Amino acid sequence: MFLHKKELQFEAKPEKSDPLLAKQIQELIGGQFGEMSVMMQYLFQGWSVRGEGNQKYKDLILDIATEEIGHVEMLVTLVARLLDKAPVEDQEAAAKMPVIGAALSGMNPQHAIVSGLGARPADSVGNPWQGSYIISSGNLLADFRANLNAESQGRLQACRVYEMTTDQGVKDLLSVLIARDSYHQNMWAAAIAELEEKEGLLVPSTFPREKERLDLAYSLYNHSEGEYSSEGSWANGQALDGQGELRYESTPPVEGSIPMLKAAPPSTHNTLPADKDKSMM
Amino acid sequence: MFLHKKELQFEAKPEKSDPLLAKQIQELIGGQFGEMSVMMQYLFQGWSVRGEGNQKYKDLILDIATEEIGHVEMLVTLVARLLDKAPVEDQEAAAKMPVIGAALSGMNPQHAIVSGLGARPADSVGNPWQGSYIISSGNLLADFRANLNAESQGRLQACRVYEMTTDQGVKDLLSVLIARDSYHQNMWAAAIAELEEKEGLLVPSTFPREKERLDLAYSLYNHSEGEYSSEGSWANGQALDGQGELRYESTPPVEGSIPMLKAAPPSTHNTLPADKDKSMM
Amino acid sequence: MFLHKKELQFEAKPEKSDPLLAKQIQELIGGQFGEMSVMMQYLFQGWSVRGEGNQKYKDLILDIATEEIGHVEMLVTLVARLLDKAPVEDQEAAAKMPVIGAALSGMNPQHAIVSGLGARPADSVGNPWQGSYIISSGNLLADFRANLNAESQGRLQACRVYEMTTDQGVKDLLSVLIARDSYHQNMWAAAIAELEEKEGLLVPSTFPREKERLDLAYSLYNHSEGEYSSEGSWANGQALDGQGELRYESTPPVEGSIPMLKAAPPSTHNTLPADKDKSMM
Amino acid sequence: MFLHKKELQFEAKPEKSDPLLAKQIQELIGGQFGEMSVMMQYLFQGWSVRGEGNQKYKDLILDIATEEIGHVEMLVTLVARLLDKAPVEDQEAAAKMPVIGAALSGMNPQHAIVSGLGARPADSVGNPWQGSYIISSGNLLADFRANLNAESQGRLQACRVYEMTTDQGVKDLLSVLIARDSYHQNMWAAAIAELEEKEGLLVPSTFPREKERLDLAYSLYNHSEGEYSSEGSWANGQALDGQGELRYESTPPVEGSIPMLKAAPPSTHNTLPADKDKSMM
Amino acid sequence: MFLHKKELQFEAKPEKSDPLLAKQIQELIGGQFGEMSVMMQYLFQGWSVRGEGNQKYKDLILDIATEEIGHVEMLVTLVARLLDKAPVEDQEAAAKMPVIGAALSGMNPQHAIVSGLGARPADSVGNPWQGSYIISSGNLLADFRANLNAESQGRLQACRVYEMTTDQGVKDLLSVLIARDSYHQNMWAAAIAELEEKEGLLVPSTFPREKERLDLAYSLYNHSEGEYSSEGSWANGQALDGQGELRYESTPPVEGSIPMLKAAPPSTHNTLPADKDKSMM
Amino acid sequence: MFLHKKELQFEAKPEKSDPLLAKQIQELIGGQFGEMSVMMQYLFQGWSVRGEGNQKYKDLILDIATEEIGHVEMLVTLVARLLDKAPVEDQEAAAKMPVIGAALSGMNPQHAIVSGLGARPADSVGNPWQGSYIISSGNLLADFRANLNAESQGRLQACRVYEMTTDQGVKDLLSVLIARDSYHQNMWAAAIAELEEKEGLLVPSTFPREKERLDLAYSLYNHSEGEYSSEGSWANGQALDGQGELRYESTPPVEGSIPMLKAAPPSTHNTLPADKDKSMM
Repeated sequence: MFLHKKELQFEAKPEKSDPLLAKQIQELIGGQFGEMSVMMQYLFQGWSVRGEGNQKYKDLILDIATEEIGHVEMLVTLVARLLDKAPVEDQEAAAKMPVIGAALSGMNPQHAIVSGLGARPADSVGNPWQGSYIISSGNLLADFRANLNAESQGRLQACRVYEMTTDQGVKDLLSVLIARDSYHQNMWAAAIAELEEKEGLLVPSTFPREKERLDLAYSLYNHSEGEYSSEGSWANGQALDGQGELRYESTPPVEGSIPMLKAAPPSTHNTLPADKDKSMM
Repeated sequence: MFLHKKELQFEAKPEKSDPLLAKQIQELIGGQFGEMSVMMQYLFQGWSVRGEGNQKYKDLILDIATEEIGHVEMLVTLVARLLDKAPVEDQEAAAKMPVIGAALSGMNPQHAIVSGLGARPADSVGNPWQGSYIISSGNLLADFRANLNAESQGRLQACRVYEMTTDQGVKDLLSVLIARDSYHQNMWAAAIAELEEKEGLLVPSTFPREKERLDLAYSLYNHSEGEYSSEGSWANGQALDGQGELRYESTPPVEGSIPMLKAAPPSTHNTLPADKDKSMM
Repeated sequence: MFLHKKELQFEAKPEKSDPLLAKQIQELIGGQFGEMSVMMQYLFQGWSVRGEGNQKYKDLILDIATEEIGHVEMLVTLVARLLDKAPVEDQEAAAKMPVIGAALSGMNPQHAIVSGLGARPADSVGNPWQGSYIISSGNLLADFRANLNAESQGRLQACRVYEMTTDQGVKDLLSVLIARDSYHQNMWAAAIAELEEKEGLLVPSTFPREKERLDLAYSLYNHSEGEYSSEGSWANGQALDGQGELRYESTPPVEGSIPMLKAAPPSTHNTLPADKDKSMM
Repeated sequence: MFLHKKELQFEAKPEKSDPLLAKQIQELIGGQFGEMSVMMQYLFQGWSVRGEGNQKYKDLILDIATEEIGHVEMLVTLVARLLDKAPVEDQEAAAKMPVIGAALSGMNPQHAIVSGLGARPADSVGNPWQGSYIISSGNLLADFRANLNAESQGRLQACRVYEMTTDQGVKDLLSVLIARDSYHQNMWAAAIAELEEKEGLLVPSTFPREKERLDLAYSLYNHSEGEYSSEGSWANGQALDGQGELRYESTPPVEGSIPMLKAAPPSTHNTLPADKDKSMM
Repeated sequence: MFLHKKELQFEAKPEKSDPLLAKQIQELIGGQFGEMSVMMQYLFQGWSVRGEGNQKYKDLILDIATEEIGHVEMLVTLVARLLDKAPVEDQEAAAKMPVIGAALSGMNPQHAIVSGLGARPADSVGNPWQGSYIISSGNLLADFRANLNAESQGRLQACRVYEMTTDQGVKDLLSVLIARDSYHQNMWAAAIAELEEKEGLLVPSTFPREKERLDLAYSLYNHSEGEYSSEGSWANGQALDGQGELRYESTPPVEGSIPMLKAAPPSTHNTLPADKDKSMM
Repeated sequence: MFLHKKELQFEAKPEKSDPLLAKQIQELIGGQFGEMSVMMQYLFQGWSVRGEGNQKYKDLILDIATEEIGHVEMLVTLVARLLDKAPVEDQEAAAKMPVIGAALSGMNPQHAIVSGLGARPADSVGNPWQGSYIISSGNLLADFRANLNAESQGRLQACRVYEMTTDQGVKDLLSVLIARDSYHQNMWAAAIAELEEKEGLLVPSTFPREKERLDLAYSLYNHSEGEYSSEGSWANGQALDGQGELRYESTPPVEGSIPMLKAAPPSTHNTLPADKDKSMM
C-alpha cells in the first residue's frame, strides 16, 4: 500500500521552456531504461520475492521502487515546464525563424496534440513504454544483474542528456538523478557480491552442473577470422566461477549433422517435396 | 560478411514430437532473453565498437554473436521436429483423449495455421520478437553488464525448461546451451572485471563526479516502513566504487516544493483553471 | 514523492493454487483496463494538472492513483499464490490427468519459464502492458470521461472473473476491487457533472462554435439500409448540449467531389500514370 | 456488406502542400483517438451486438462506423495532397533554407521512403495503429462511455490541429470533422442517458450488489497529504447511483497483513531463501 | 464514402459453438494475413493511387477493399456464434471433463473477460492487429506483388483451418473465402502481368540501371558450403528481366575492407579506446 | 552454423557525417522491408524447409539469408559513420544555424542518447524491428511471392533514399544493394516460375478445388459506383490459372441474411436485450 507526499523530492525547474529538450528527456521517462522501467521492474521484483529468509531483499527492492515513482514524477513535471511555451500556433511564422523553426519541426507533435503540453508515457521517438522492458525472474542474483545493468544504462543516458543542454535547472535535476544512479550501482553491486559469495558466479546456482555438458563450458569458440579475441582474460587461466580452466578454440567444434526435416502432413498444404519424398511415408 | 556451414553445431533431435513443448521452447528462441536476442544484441554491439584500441572486444563480441546465430538455428530445427505430429486434423476426436486434448488446446495455433509446423520468431505466448529487447549503448562496460544479465536470465530459463521435460533429445541440446551460457557468464564476468579495473565501478566512468550531487550518491533512502533493508552491505561501510561511505537514511530527504504548473495557453483547449488563474497572465 | 506501507490494503489469499485462474487474472493486472492502466493513467493525469485553480482535481486524481498502485500490489500477490503449485515438472505424467492436464496446457508458460511463478506485467494472453493504453490530455472533462470508461470496463471485467471462479479467497479480493470500482464510477461521474455544469457538454468547451460547421453538428446520417437508428433519443428533440435540435437524415449528404491525386514526382519512383498524365506537368 | 461511393463526403483540399502538417495530421488518422480507431471500434461493437431487442443500437453503431470509414478516406486524401511537394530531393540545398529545412528535418521520413507521399496507418510520431486501441466489451453502457470519451479526445485533438495551421482548406475539413464530433458527443450522451435511466449508473448493472463489499463502495480514501480532494461533490452527499452516501476518509483503511510468499519449488531455480526457509517444507 | 447493407454477403452459421475454433479463426480476422489486413491494405492503397491514368487500378483496388470489409464482418459474426456456449462459469466442474476441459484451458480468455463473447481485433494468440502489417508504397507493381502474396498466405491459412474442423457451417463460409482468395490471386496475377509487360520485371522500373552496380546484378553468391543452389533456373541462362545472363559464383566477392570506426566524442561517454586511440585526434 | 569474415563485403564509407541521413537509412536496416527483415525471413524459411526433395531450395534460401546478414552489417557501419559528428552538444548554439539546426532537430535522439552514435534495430521513425514483419509459412510458392514482394519494396526504398542524398559514398553502397535487389527479384521470379509450372498458379495447389465455391472463384464484384475496374485483364477472358473464365458482376451477390446474435449468458454481464429477448431462452 502506498502514500503520496505532495512535495517533489527534488526541484524540477528548468530555466526556460525548450520543447526539443522535452522530447529528448522523454527517453529518461519512458525509454527502455527510463524511470518508468526501473520503477515497474523494482515493484514487480519486490512484490514477487518469495521466502521468509529473503525479506531484507524485498524491503530493499521496494524502497528503491518507491523512490523511483518519485523520479518519474520529477521528470514528468520537468517536461511539462519545458513545454510551457511550445510553438503550437502560428506555425507558418515560426518556421521562418531558425531557432523556433527547429523547435517546431523537431518537437514531439504528440506533446501538442495528444497530451496538451504534458509528458507522455513514451520514449524520445514516441514509442510507448511497455511491460516487456522489465525483468523479474524470481532469481535474485539474475535480477540484481539486470538492475545493475539498468542503472548503468540509465546513468549513461542521463549523462548524455546532461551534456546536451546548458539549462542549469535541468542540469540540477539531472545531477541528482545521476547521483542516485551512482548509489544504485554501488548498491546492486554490493547485493550481487553478497549473493555471489553465497551462491557462486553462475546463475542459477542450483542446477546440478553434471547435467550440463561441462566439456563445453569453459571454451571460447572462434567463429570469425582473426584471433584478437584470444588475448583476453576470458580465454586464459582460471574461470571466475573457480570451477574450470578457460580455453580458446581456433576452430569451433561441430557435432551435429546436416538437418533434414520430415515432410509435413498433407493437411498443412505445405510444399510437397519433389518426387514423393520418402520421408513422408 | 558471413558464411554458413550446413551442419548444425550440435544435434537437435527430440525423441518424439510434442507440440506443447514446442510452444514452451519458443521462449528460448524469440523471448526477451531467447537466442534471437543475444544474437542480435551481440551483432549490433560488435558492429558498433569504435576505436582501434577496442578491437579485441569487437572480435570477442562478434565471435559470440556468430555462435548465437547457430543457436537459433538449432532451436528452430528442434521446434520443427517437436511439431512433426501435431494434432492439426480431426480435432473433435482428439479433444476426447486427455493427452491429445491437452496438446490440441495448449499448442500454439500459429504453429499449425501460420508457419506450417515451423518455429515462429516469437516467444512462448506468441509475442513477436522485437528490437526493443536488445541493448547496444556504445559503452562497453554498460553493455557487458547487459550481456551478463542476458546470459543469466537465458541460462535460468533453459534450466527451467530442462526440468519441464523428460525427452532426452531435448535435454541433450539444452545441456549444450546451458554449458555455453555458463561459459558466456564466465566470459562477460571476466571482461567486466577487466574494464572495472581500468575504469572503476560506475558507468560511465568519464562523467566528472563533481557534476553530480555527491552528497546524495552514497545513501539508501528508506521509502517504506520497516528497516530490514538497513542490514545489508549496501547500507554500511565503504562503497564498492572505493569513493564513498555508505549510509542508511530512515527518512528520505525532501528538497523540492509542491509543484504548481502554469496554465496552458488557450490554443491547447486544456481545462481552464477556475477563476482566471493568475499563473496564466 | 511516495512512501510504501508493508501491509496489503486488503487480503489477497486464494484458497488454493490455480494456474489457469492466475493466467486469467493477468487481465486485471496488465490488460488494457487492468490496474496498471488506471494506476499509470491517474499518475500521468495528476502530475500534469495545470493551474492553481485545479488543485482539488490534482489532489483527487493523485489520491486515486496512489490507491491503484496498491491494487496492482494485491493482484500481483494473488497471482503469485495462485501459482504456488503450478505443474512445472513431470509434464508427461500430468498430461494424463484431465484437471492437471488442463492446467498444464492452459497455463501461461511465461509464469513458469520467465517469472518463476510470479505475476507478469501483461494481460491474460501475454501481451505486455503498454503506455498507449493510457489517456492524459490536459483537458479534465475529456479525461474524466476516459476515467469513467476505465472504471466501467474494469468493473465489468472483475465481475466476469468473479463468475468464473469458486475460490472464496479470490472472490473476497474481487469483491473489494468491484466495490472500489463502484465508488470510482460514482466519483468520476460526480466530477464530470461538476465540470459539465460549468463548461457544457461538448469537449473542448473553449473552441468557438462558429468555427465548426454548425449545420452538420446535430444530424444523424443513415449510412446503412434500415431505419432502426432513427428511433432513439439521439435523433429527435433537443440535444443534451442545449444548443441544437437533433435531426435524422435518411440519406447522408455528399459535398465532396471524386478525389484525383496529382502524380508524384519521378524521384519517388511511384507508378507513372498511363500516357504521360497531364497532372504531372 | 459494404458499398463505396466515389465522392468524398466532404472536400479535402489544402491550399498548399505542407509536409510538417501532414505528419501532424497523421495523429487524426492513426493515433489512439484517430479516425481509424473510431471506425474499427464502432465496426467491432456493431457487429457484436447481441439480442433482438438491441437492434436499434446495432443500427446506430454501424451507421456511425460506416460514416467513419469515410472520415479516414478524407484525411488520407488530405495528407496525400499536403505531401505533393515534399522536399524529397536535393536535401543539402534544402537544409540551407530555414522554412524548407524545417520541413525537411521535421517531416516523417516514411512519407518519402515507405509510402511514396501517401498517408500511413500510423500516428504523428510513427507508431502504427493497433487493435489494442479499440474497445468492444459486449456491454453497451460501458462501450458508449468509451465512445463518448473517444469523441471527446478526438474533437479535442482536431481543435488543437485547427489552431496549428492557417491553411483554409485544412481548416474547412477540420470544421466538418469537429462538427461531426460534436454530434457524436451529443449522440453517445443521449444513448448513455437512455441506458442509465434503465440500468442505473453502475456498469455492469446486473452484478448483485450484495456480492461486493458495499461498506467500501462510497468512500474516498485520502492516499496523500493534504485534503483538497475532500471538497468535491465526489466526497459528500448522495452518490449519483442513488444507493449510498459519499464519505471522505482521511486515513485509508488497512485490512491486509504483510504478505509473505512461500518459497518456490526447486525446479524453478528461484533464489533459495536463506537458512532453509521453513515456508518451503 | 461508404454505405452498409444489413445482410451478410454470405452466411456465417456454425453448426455448434466451439470456443477453441473461435480462437483459431481469430488468425483469419486479425492475423498478419487476416481479413483486417487486406481490408486496410487495399483501402490505403486505393485512396493513395495518384494520376488520372491510374483510375482503373484505383477503382479495382477499392472494389476489393470494400468487399473485404464484408469479409471481416462475416468472420466476426462467425466467431461470436462459435462462442455462444463458451464455458465461462463453473470452471472447476468443467475442468474435470476432457472435452470441456480442453475448451476451457485452450480458449482465449479475452473472449470471456474482455469482449463478452465477441471477436477481438487480434490474431489466434492474442496479438492485436497492427498497422505495420499493411503495405502501400505508391508503386503499383510492388504493391500488387504484396497483394498476390497476401492472398496466397491468406488462402493457405484458410485451407489449414478448413482441415482443422468438421463443422459444416464453418466449412461453408471458408469455402466461400477460399474461392474469393482464388479469384483475388488470379486477379492480382493478371494485373501484375499487365504492369510487367509495360514496365518490365524490376521494381521500380524507373530507376536508371546504369546507376546500380550492373556487374553485381545477375549473380548468385554461394554463402554456404554445398552447391545445391547452383542447379536452379535462378543461376543459369537468361534472367527473366531479359537484360542479363545469370551466373553462379562459388565464392562470394569481397570488395570491402575491415571496418574501423572512429572513436566517439567524449560527450557520448562511450568506452574510450585503449591508449588514447589515434583515431580520436 | 555460421562463420564471420572481418571484411565488409562492400565498402560503407560516406563522404561526410550526416545525422539526418543516418535517421533515414534506418528504414533500410530495421524497417518493415529493411535488411533485418529479409535476413530473418530467409533464415526462418531456410531452417524450416521440409523434405529431402526440397534441398536445393533450402540451400538457395540460406545462401541469400547469409548474404543479407552482411547487408545489415554494411548499413550499420554506414550509419555509425554518418553519425560521427552529430551535434550532440551545444544545442543552443547549434539551433541558431539553419543547417545544423535542421540536423539537430531532425536527427533521431536515440542515436545520441541510447546507442552512443551507433545504429538502432529500428526504422526511420524509431519503431523497433519486430518478428511480425517476417513471413515463413512452410509453403514455398507462397513464401517466394513474399520474397519477391520484399525485394521489390526493398529496392524501391533504396532507390528513394538514393535520390535523397548527394553523398557519393552512400550512393556507392546503395548502388550495390540496389543491384543485389535486382538479382534477388530475378531470382525469386525464376523460382516462382519453376514452382508455378509444377503446381499451378493458386496457392496452395493441394487443396481440392471442389471444396471451394467454384461458382464464386472467377468473378470481380463491383462494390463501388463506376465501372472503371471492368476494363482490365482481370475481368475478361481466361484466368491465368487456366481453369476458369473471368467475369465482371456489376452488382455483388448477396446470399446471407441479416445476422442476429443470441443474447449472451447472464454471467458475462453483457447488456441485456430489451424486454427479455426470446433468443435468450
